[in-house]
Amino acid sequence: MVAIVHRYTGEFDWEGVEASLYPPAKEMKGVSIRRLISPAEGARNFALRYFQIEAGGWTSLDQHPHDHGVVILRGEGKVLLGQSETEVHCGDVVYIPPHELHQLRNDGEEPLGFLCVIPAREESA
Amino acid sequence: MVAIVHRYTGEFDWEGVEASLYPPAKEMKGVSIRRLISPAEGARNFALRYFQIEAGGWTSLDQHPHDHGVVILRGEGKVLLGQSETEVHCGDVVYIPPHELHQLRNDGEEPLGFLCVIPAREESA
Repeated sequence: MVAIVHRYTGEFDWEGVEASLYPPAKEMKGVSIRRLISPAEGARNFALRYFQIEAGGWTSLDQHPHDHGVVILRGEGKVLLGQSETEVHCGDVVYIPPHELHQLRNDGEEPLGFLCVIPAREESA
Repeated sequence: MVAIVHRYTGEFDWEGVEASLYPPAKEMKGVSIRRLISPAEGARNFALRYFQIEAGGWTSLDQHPHDHGVVILRGEGKVLLGQSETEVHCGDVVYIPPHELHQLRNDGEEPLGFLCVIPAREESA
């Protein structure tokens, strides 16, 4: 396995990383994903993705056995954690434990961008 | 397990997260760690840490079975990957595979800060 550097090219894009809608089969709005570290890089323990939610967009209402680590990199929005919703801003870190109901919404006017870490086995599914 | 939000308080600090020298037993210089998501948050799959290397500092020369995912958040420096050294700047993403020799050095004038993801079992060790 070889080391990989994805150079940042500005404006939340990286060399060798494509943006795609995420995921087409689920009900969400205005969400794109950039897979920064994933099984494509040979990573078997964790995956690191950059998500962006356009203004007015939202991720699907999710609940599953794996956990998430989230770092907000741009913008602001709201995250639902169980029964309560909380505001998040650039720089905030959120740990979403296994089986926690969660959803992110961008009710601001700028894109909401964040890093999201998951176990690698979920990314390859 | 409960969800956790570590609010960003500016200047690369977070609520509920302490900075400490990292790690005192190894040979490195000017390196601090902030554990953003770790077994302390209940995370069992991955750990997410913020490292900062002061100007002129460096991490230990390491080689081990687990991998790293790195995202540069501030400054610039050099990363040794195997036998070759490459420059990294704010925003760059580096995947360091298992058993790869690696070291980060800050030869700039500003702090070099980066997120680093590892398997959780390594953080609890």
